[in-house]
Amino acid sequence: MKVGFIGLGAMGSGIAANILREGHELVVWNRSPGPLEALKAQGAVVAKSPEETLTGDALFTMLANDAAVSAIGLDGPLLDKAAKGLVHVNMATVSTAFAKALTEAHRARGLGYVASPVFGRPDAAAAGKLTVVAAGAREDIAKVEPILTKIGAKYAVVGSDPVQANLFKISGNFMIAAAIEAMGEAAALLQKGGVDPAVFFDVLTSANFNAPIYKIYGKIIAEQSYDQAGFKLSLGYKDAGLTLAAAKEFEAPLPLASLVHDHFLAAMAAGWGEKDWASLAKLAADRTKVATS
Amino acid sequence: MKVGFIGLGAMGSGIAANILREGHELVVWNRSPGPLEALKAQGAVVAKSPEETLTGDALFTMLANDAAVSAIGLDGPLLDKAAKGLVHVNMATVSTAFAKALTEAHRARGLGYVASPVFGRPDAAAAGKLTVVAAGAREDIAKVEPILTKIGAKYAVVGSDPVQANLFKISGNFMIAAAIEAMGEAAALLQKGGVDPAVFFDVLTSANFNAPIYKIYGKIIAEQSYDQAGFKLSLGYKDAGLTLAAAKEFEAPLPLASLVHDHFLAAMAAGWGEKDWASLAKLAADRTKVATS
Amino acid sequence: MKVGFIGLGAMGSGIAANILREGHELVVWNRSPGPLEALKAQGAVVAKSPEETLTGDALFTMLANDAAVSAIGLDGPLLDKAAKGLVHVNMATVSTAFAKALTEAHRARGLGYVASPVFGRPDAAAAGKLTVVAAGAREDIAKVEPILTKIGAKYAVVGSDPVQANLFKISGNFMIAAAIEAMGEAAALLQKGGVDPAVFFDVLTSANFNAPIYKIYGKIIAEQSYDQAGFKLSLGYKDAGLTLAAAKEFEAPLPLASLVHDHFLAAMAAGWGEKDWASLAKLAADRTKVATS
Amino acid sequence: MKVGFIGLGAMGSGIAANILREGHELVVWNRSPGPLEALKAQGAVVAKSPEETLTGDALFTMLANDAAVSAIGLDGPLLDKAAKGLVHVNMATVSTAFAKALTEAHRARGLGYVASPVFGRPDAAAAGKLTVVAAGAREDIAKVEPILTKIGAKYAVVGSDPVQANLFKISGNFMIAAAIEAMGEAAALLQKGGVDPAVFFDVLTSANFNAPIYKIYGKIIAEQSYDQAGFKLSLGYKDAGLTLAAAKEFEAPLPLASLVHDHFLAAMAAGWGEKDWASLAKLAADRTKVATS
Repeated sequence: MKVGFIGLGAMGSGIAANILREGHELVVWNRSPGPLEALKAQGAVVAKSPEETLTGDALFTMLANDAAVSAIGLDGPLLDKAAKGLVHVNMATVSTAFAKALTEAHRARGLGYVASPVFGRPDAAAAGKLTVVAAGAREDIAKVEPILTKIGAKYAVVGSDPVQANLFKISGNFMIAAAIEAMGEAAALLQKGGVDPAVFFDVLTSANFNAPIYKIYGKIIAEQSYDQAGFKLSLGYKDAGLTLAAAKEFEAPLPLASLVHDHFLAAMAAGWGEKDWASLAKLAADRTKVATS
Repeated sequence: MKVGFIGLGAMGSGIAANILREGHELVVWNRSPGPLEALKAQGAVVAKSPEETLTGDALFTMLANDAAVSAIGLDGPLLDKAAKGLVHVNMATVSTAFAKALTEAHRARGLGYVASPVFGRPDAAAAGKLTVVAAGAREDIAKVEPILTKIGAKYAVVGSDPVQANLFKISGNFMIAAAIEAMGEAAALLQKGGVDPAVFFDVLTSANFNAPIYKIYGKIIAEQSYDQAGFKLSLGYKDAGLTLAAAKEFEAPLPLASLVHDHFLAAMAAGWGEKDWASLAKLAADRTKVATS
Repeated sequence: MKVGFIGLGAMGSGIAANILREGHELVVWNRSPGPLEALKAQGAVVAKSPEETLTGDALFTMLANDAAVSAIGLDGPLLDKAAKGLVHVNMATVSTAFAKALTEAHRARGLGYVASPVFGRPDAAAAGKLTVVAAGAREDIAKVEPILTKIGAKYAVVGSDPVQANLFKISGNFMIAAAIEAMGEAAALLQKGGVDPAVFFDVLTSANFNAPIYKIYGKIIAEQSYDQAGFKLSLGYKDAGLTLAAAKEFEAPLPLASLVHDHFLAAMAAGWGEKDWASLAKLAADRTKVATS
Repeated sequence: MKVGFIGLGAMGSGIAANILREGHELVVWNRSPGPLEALKAQGAVVAKSPEETLTGDALFTMLANDAAVSAIGLDGPLLDKAAKGLVHVNMATVSTAFAKALTEAHRARGLGYVASPVFGRPDAAAAGKLTVVAAGAREDIAKVEPILTKIGAKYAVVGSDPVQANLFKISGNFMIAAAIEAMGEAAALLQKGGVDPAVFFDVLTSANFNAPIYKIYGKIIAEQSYDQAGFKLSLGYKDAGLTLAAAKEFEAPLPLASLVHDHFLAAMAAGWGEKDWASLAKLAADRTKVATS
């Protein structure tokens, strides 16, 4: 298959490399040229402009947010240059409102559009171990499924309307933020009562909560190591905003999502945007006036 | 070791059987005689009164709540009959306030007191696979550790003051309730947006949320099977009350715990006390007016 | 009428003086003798023991809380000494659970019991300008109404079960706490945006919010004068606890009451118990990191 | 002074009539011609296009929201037609983000811009009894103050940056929504306890809460008369959204505002958008399962 790829950050580069490895013809473009060399060495063709990535069967994009997708013209102008029958696979976490606009923009031009956000970090992307979800018209998905099934360890079709995949991704991120909030409140209570949160998380994750999320964030919270951000609080705050925007759009009141969003906002006001989003736990500790390092 | 045991419900019976299997001499008592026969057949001595369980080296109790412990006199009168040097191991989930009163009542009589709540369900109790935590004076714990280490797959000392083990248990239960609330809100949003929550939980629990709690409750929520209660909502509500009482006692504001408690209360007002506590998810769905079976 | 009076703090003394002024025979008792002299000078008989206050037609009590009422034996032992037909008018803000216990204790002894909490501060009590509400059996209220209608500017019967008057009082206090929270959040937002909260409260209270509550607390919040407590935060916290206890008892989820209670708890954890309960506003300001004096 | 006026709904027509009465020359325009005749009869000149309203010293606009202001071109294109030195007085409740954009659009063209939202209902507008607040550059305000001081009973300058008046208005609306929520929760608790909310609001508004907001909404809530909307819930929901948007922009976490917004959202999901916004109280009652008519 001839495939274009735009957006070669840590996530995008890993995914693009996996597409190459599957034997597809890959044309890549990135705003900054840094990541292009490595992919070229692996056999990718480097495009001189975004337009050149739209000449094949499919275009994969992995951009930061609504604004980045729009800046490049993927909600309109750039699409006018696309090859007939092209299917655009958007892997970004975008708002549900923007997802609908994108769907419409592609439909109006007779192009395919599949939303396919992923769960996982750069190392999982490189190793082809992502969790990949997809939503879109049946025939669009069919065309790109040979690739989607290869870039992750787990793949699921979650709906026939692209926005449903974005809703799925947003809900997943909400689950993580909620887990962090719960861990933070429990740790604050325990610490105030003289119990070491590290012991608590160790016991929990050896039993009912034996999952990566609790292991990763339990460790960060117990060690209060918020300064090296694995995922920046400002990004968590953005995602929490997407959750509330989706709640509004679908008229689904989510009081826990509102609570988490308020706490992210308090953390932003405290100037913690660059810290790890597990800093929600520091906020909980501060409310109890437990001394935190 | 000569050991007494009071409270032979599904959990208590399983634990008592494991103590017997370890070769200890066991004297058992229960308010209703039903469970006594089975243990007698396994070698236990059936006491004619609670007093007879306090003549050995240790007394284990597994009762429903503060009131049940008090009803039997374990916060005072019954203790006056205890053998010198006896260590009482209380496995019940009691309030932190009552935990302090119990600690004092034992200390005043020169008796040992260890709080040792467990995590796990009856099948884990029977199989010796519980997670066991303990808190109390070093020397008290040392006496009963040969047993505590055998009744569970995981064992941890979490503090030198018994109340700390209760705080630990309460915090653990809070974590579960919070996870259910998060799952319920996510499911409500997804369902309103036309995404099947079963697919969501399947994807989640194959990756970052690969833990029993999410598998068990994800299934219940996706199937909306709230009528066969694995754990009754009225008990979840009681535990949420213990969390807030602990929050008050240790002056640790826990907004998520308050939110969860309010939702349990709404479910109680709706008459759902006998349903599974995952009914929090039905409440979230009802708020979105998604049709639920 | 021959009337007993127990509890001569600032509120009780003002009310007692008004009863005397109406020409009733008054027998007074107080734990500390300080306030007795002034009332004696106004014609009251000073009792040597609480029992002597129960020999007339009615007993009025104005005590701090559940514990103070119980300490004096008014939930049992002391009532055994009461004259036949005595009606006890309890003006304290007690919990709804305790209100029910008191009702039962009086009924069992054939005594009348009326709950009659008041709204207003000591100066209103002295001036006979309180707002007085009452609940109890029709015939009990009828006996004491000649007095209840004279100690306040506004009087209303709110129910036939005494607990209903306590519920009424608790709800009124909740309204004030909620108003303070709203003012505090608005002030925090405005201040962060460079608008003077004093101007805001001035405009508001000249129009739709032209009420004492908003004038009094608007001024305190705009001036950030939390150190001279008109009403201590620790007492507001206690009342917020009564609201949640009532919410639990009547199975009425009150999310705003929970939110306010959590904020009071955070203020307690911050060590602000002796400050004015309007310090909720400082908490709101702190969350925005607006510099507060 | 020569003054233009755009937006002649119930509020705008009342204000425009007052400007006329003050002897100013008034040029009016409205999207629908209905309200124009009455003002023409009072001496106004009816413009054939919006442009004609920008030829004087000042332009007053009273439009529904951000979109209505933008639709007419007041955030750009239309301003290019404005007379030199014109001061635009925007009385609409717009978002703080849009307020900033408008300020910039006027500044860039050398035009004055004053934000001057009002508090009050159409009858107050007609009677010149509104509460008027204004924010903007000192010299801009000075030019239009002769009018601003005449259209209301209360007038206050609240800042030098127009956005501050919008923040003020948004905060005022939040105060009302918060008061309704508190009234609703109190009424739900009382009703569940058998106390008539009408008595509660009567007592409250005769004392500490003696203000129009509590009288108006206390009556609606006690009578459960939500069907004739004095102010539609969908508009209250919109305003609650403006509050949260301002909270975000100024980084001021407002948990009570989030709670109120969630409740509005639940009411929208229930299909109550056309009912009175006091329906928040019905939501509180429904949570307690109190039967509501």
